[in-house]
Amino acid sequence: MRVMGVDPGLTRCGLSIVEGGSGRKVTAVDVDVVRTPGDMDLAQRLLAVADAAERWMDIHEPGAVAIERVFAQHNVRTAMGTAQAGGVIALAAARRGIPVAFHTPSEVKAAVTGNGTADKRQVTAMVTRILGLPSAPKPADAADALALAICHCWRAPLLERMAAAEAKAAAAQRRYRERLAEQRKAVHG
Amino acid sequence: MRVMGVDPGLTRCGLSIVEGGSGRKVTAVDVDVVRTPGDMDLAQRLLAVADAAERWMDIHEPGAVAIERVFAQHNVRTAMGTAQAGGVIALAAARRGIPVAFHTPSEVKAAVTGNGTADKRQVTAMVTRILGLPSAPKPADAADALALAICHCWRAPLLERMAAAEAKAAAAQRRYRERLAEQRKAVHG
Repeated sequence: MRVMGVDPGLTRCGLSIVEGGSGRKVTAVDVDVVRTPGDMDLAQRLLAVADAAERWMDIHEPGAVAIERVFAQHNVRTAMGTAQAGGVIALAAARRGIPVAFHTPSEVKAAVTGNGTADKRQVTAMVTRILGLPSAPKPADAADALALAICHCWRAPLLERMAAAEAKAAAAQRRYRERLAEQRKAVHG
Repeated sequence: MRVMGVDPGLTRCGLSIVEGGSGRKVTAVDVDVVRTPGDMDLAQRLLAVADAAERWMDIHEPGAVAIERVFAQHNVRTAMGTAQAGGVIALAAARRGIPVAFHTPSEVKAAVTGNGTADKRQVTAMVTRILGLPSAPKPADAADALALAICHCWRAPLLERMAAAEAKAAAAQRRYRERLAEQRKAVHG
């Protein structure tokens, strides 16, 4: 599975492509950081980020897009821009029929380091090791975008199995209720 | 000037079209509320909101799009979705070359009621009166979308005059500095 990882942002937006193989084998295909100037019109910044992400989707044809789920940060203004950048990329994926998944920062950290509260340094070190890169990806947004994609490669099969198990359980419960209703009807009807 | 007003949201997104005339004359052309179900995939909700807004832009051809600027609210999760809905609509406008303006809730309230802390009831009552509507627009998101467009019709000329005055002042200052540099050169050079 080819996954596009996105560390959303307006000032810096990390984009990555990671190829997931069998087991936990993952390979980095591409990584970059898109920047837009802070004095640019907000709508124009969103356009620049969306255009860059769409170019990546057209070139790399990912099978899934994994975006960091944004929470309110220290700076509310920044959080809103970050959410909007993630939103326009999710929209671009939806228009192409590519499934979109959101992972929280702690889910990403837990997936790549085993610790949901790991710091940026630890995340970068583990991403470098997991992907077998010759040097640490820079800036941190690039490493985060790679971590997002790795997290998705590893979590997606689990999430799919969970969804399948839940659907199976719901179907079993529905069949049980139907049988119960029939038996009641046979007794009382 | 034809303005599209947007009260952004995923559960309910208010859209309006208001025609601004000379002075403070404003006329409502259209108003509606787009809804997406809460259990729908986030990317699909953004797609539904963006599609609806783009249809409006194609039909009504607004000269400007005015969107409510979102701040962190009580519910952070809701605020992020609201920011993302506003973001995808701003993107759609930018793609069409339509200028986008963001107004804060208090700017909108102050414009239509004269009071930046007016409540929803007062805003709806003033919007109904200003536009000469036979009855109050419902739900509140529809009234808010109309208030946004009215606010932009009234603020846009002022904002343009301010931008023009600032540009003029900057040019005058530049000329003054150039003259000063020339005089210094004439004296010392």
